[in-house]
Amino acid sequence: MDIRSSVLLTDFYQLAMLQGYLERGMEDTAVFECFVRTMPPRRGFFMAAGLAQLLEFLENVRFTPDELEWVADSGRFSRSFVDYLEGFRFAGDLHAMPEGTVFFVNEPMVRVTAPLPQAQFIETRLVNLLHYQTLIASKAARCVLAAAGKPIIDFGLRRSHGAEAGLLAARACYLAGFAGSATVMAEPSFEVPVFGTMGHSFVQAHEAERHAFEHFADAQPDNVIFLLDTYDTQEGARTVVKLAPRLRDKGITIKGVRLDSGELVEQARRVRCILDEGGLGDVQITASGNLDEDAIQHLVTAQAPVDLFAVGTRLATSADAPYLDCVYKLQEYAGRPSRKRSEGKETWPGPKQVHRRYDQQGRIDHDVVTTAADTQEGTPLIRPVMESGKLLEASDSLHHIRERAMAELATLPDKMRRLSPKATISVRISAALRNLARVVDARDEAE
Amino acid sequence: MDIRSSVLLTDFYQLAMLQGYLERGMEDTAVFECFVRTMPPRRGFFMAAGLAQLLEFLENVRFTPDELEWVADSGRFSRSFVDYLEGFRFAGDLHAMPEGTVFFVNEPMVRVTAPLPQAQFIETRLVNLLHYQTLIASKAARCVLAAAGKPIIDFGLRRSHGAEAGLLAARACYLAGFAGSATVMAEPSFEVPVFGTMGHSFVQAHEAERHAFEHFADAQPDNVIFLLDTYDTQEGARTVVKLAPRLRDKGITIKGVRLDSGELVEQARRVRCILDEGGLGDVQITASGNLDEDAIQHLVTAQAPVDLFAVGTRLATSADAPYLDCVYKLQEYAGRPSRKRSEGKETWPGPKQVHRRYDQQGRIDHDVVTTAADTQEGTPLIRPVMESGKLLEASDSLHHIRERAMAELATLPDKMRRLSPKATISVRISAALRNLARVVDARDEAE
Repeated sequence: MDIRSSVLLTDFYQLAMLQGYLERGMEDTAVFECFVRTMPPRRGFFMAAGLAQLLEFLENVRFTPDELEWVADSGRFSRSFVDYLEGFRFAGDLHAMPEGTVFFVNEPMVRVTAPLPQAQFIETRLVNLLHYQTLIASKAARCVLAAAGKPIIDFGLRRSHGAEAGLLAARACYLAGFAGSATVMAEPSFEVPVFGTMGHSFVQAHEAERHAFEHFADAQPDNVIFLLDTYDTQEGARTVVKLAPRLRDKGITIKGVRLDSGELVEQARRVRCILDEGGLGDVQITASGNLDEDAIQHLVTAQAPVDLFAVGTRLATSADAPYLDCVYKLQEYAGRPSRKRSEGKETWPGPKQVHRRYDQQGRIDHDVVTTAADTQEGTPLIRPVMESGKLLEASDSLHHIRERAMAELATLPDKMRRLSPKATISVRISAALRNLARVVDARDEAE
Repeated sequence: MDIRSSVLLTDFYQLAMLQGYLERGMEDTAVFECFVRTMPPRRGFFMAAGLAQLLEFLENVRFTPDELEWVADSGRFSRSFVDYLEGFRFAGDLHAMPEGTVFFVNEPMVRVTAPLPQAQFIETRLVNLLHYQTLIASKAARCVLAAAGKPIIDFGLRRSHGAEAGLLAARACYLAGFAGSATVMAEPSFEVPVFGTMGHSFVQAHEAERHAFEHFADAQPDNVIFLLDTYDTQEGARTVVKLAPRLRDKGITIKGVRLDSGELVEQARRVRCILDEGGLGDVQITASGNLDEDAIQHLVTAQAPVDLFAVGTRLATSADAPYLDCVYKLQEYAGRPSRKRSEGKETWPGPKQVHRRYDQQGRIDHDVVTTAADTQEGTPLIRPVMESGKLLEASDSLHHIRERAMAELATLPDKMRRLSPKATISVRISAALRNLARVVDARDEAE
């Protein structure tokens, strides 16, 4: 079974509910929406991502013979249910924010309109796909803001949470404005530019650092970036200076050096001095090692002479906020709006739209969440992307999404561009939506 | 390309280093070790996990024609390098702690002994696989300790970081002592018992909660657990009591109810009262919703009448410590031990063994990390599992590993069983290892 497309990558209760719906013929149209309920501490916005992978999943969702056999053999489902699953397809409609859109709490990223069993069954993987890339893109966008125009590379694969997380982190980071990734597979999969040079083991495997550097330059003459900190960073920089004339004679240009440990502001300054005094003013400095948006901002504010940031574990795990309170909730069934009233987890009922209003400088002023049928001023953020299970248009290229994301970041008011924003954008609930909630509550109480 | 087995799921620098090693014929034997450098706050131990997936990867690692074509077309590597990659296999030796072993900082979980290019190239996926399951098993073990004998189910798939994380979290949790998972695929993949009943949407899709409950009981008569908190938890419990006689007449037994929001201690007590007064003393209460080891301990300490815990997001993302400082470092090349001396990231040189010493009650007293050749008292933790790329014996069954994990938890001293241990186990560095480090440093300075 291919884990990424398997229908068994779901919660057991989806199968249990599905059989329940089918037995009673509950196949009327349902509307579900996916949104984030709360803003993590110190965060001010989310960036939508993961829609392309969701659409691919929905276009291809079906039970393979092996999977049908597992369901049948589990002994927990009826024969007629297994027969139904054999023909299971997603034939619903999808409305969504385009990837790269900046959004806030309680704003639907995705709205699914489909026969109840279909809309229900896709829940687990839908959340799994939208949640992770949105999580990473939202943090990567903060890194991009902190870097103030300097390029950033994703180095997070090894400590990301499994294979798919590593690959999709590379996509989400690039989408949010990174220059590229160290993850090779991101290039064949998504055309993300891929970078990388050497690790400490390469230096250690040679008898001396200078041998390792010269050898690497010979082997990868177009990609000469030396890792300096295996033994002593400043010694490493002096070794580079000594080596430079010999490489120049061979026609090899040293592109850069990388610092991966220690107090990076001070190390970068000292290394810059050594390189400049050695006539290597063009050699760029990459900083890596436990970086995140705060560390980047610290380096930028201190005017450390760093030209490129490589960000790994803390980004690919979104270490300060490793999950979002991202949910997929039933809004309407058979034309009947509904909402949860669980303590602390209340939702607004019915299909919704988000309208964004900008100030005269083109910055976001506030958003209005309202019913899908309501008319409001401002730009609607959710638009149709799939109808009856078919894509309405080809998916945006990742490059195009990345440009949109950069344009979206430019609409953030200054106060929202800080790493610790004191306020978030005001998300207003329209009178129409409040009224609908009252009607739903009154109806439910009467029943 | 299957993402989980693809050799392109790696850092670009592995390919760059590989070409470098091969050009110079650097194919002598290298020893790398994987270990965790630091203990996250409030944690006292790690639990080894992920070895089975690593061994599977190593047995099958090879470049497919598509992958070779990508490397060739990238224009960054020589033709002879691509030819070498076509025959690339892992033919090295592996020593490892068995999965389920409790371990501490600076103790190698895995030692790889192989020709340098092979030992180097596997780094990224090796860390990716060992890191995530060890992360999750280590946290799941804390939940097991906190639950004090009550069963726990993993509910974390939807907000885990991608497909593989969700599936492997189910495995890691079961390994560490959970009763099962909601993730369907964990059963066909790993024989993890799978559980699940209904979500809020099932209740909402019906005109009234009581219809939803009765309908669900009819559809899944052997799996009757009602979710109570969609509207009002205590009302939900009263609905269950009213419904019970009708279900009894149909021969249906109510197994349990689930609470998913609100103040769970108080809710559980009230629901327990309502159920008991309604003659439903046998109906079990499951608690879910933002649980982790601290919430479980709170419920246990308060003697809340909860029979089963369902733990999701905070576990599958290891929210309090979303990554471990897990590394894979070169220890020796061509018989020459080496170590990193990077500021704050120093390592001990050479191939190592860990010896564990127990007190008279069979609890861990301390560990000694020493050279592989050194003899020490105590139980060696690392043993051979793969020789020349072949498994030495069939992998342990997950059930067997789970029993080992339970036995390992029983060896933790009482002070280490607390959620906020004041001390960790003493990991002593042997005289032999300290001496080797001095020899290596003196040699490097002389060069």
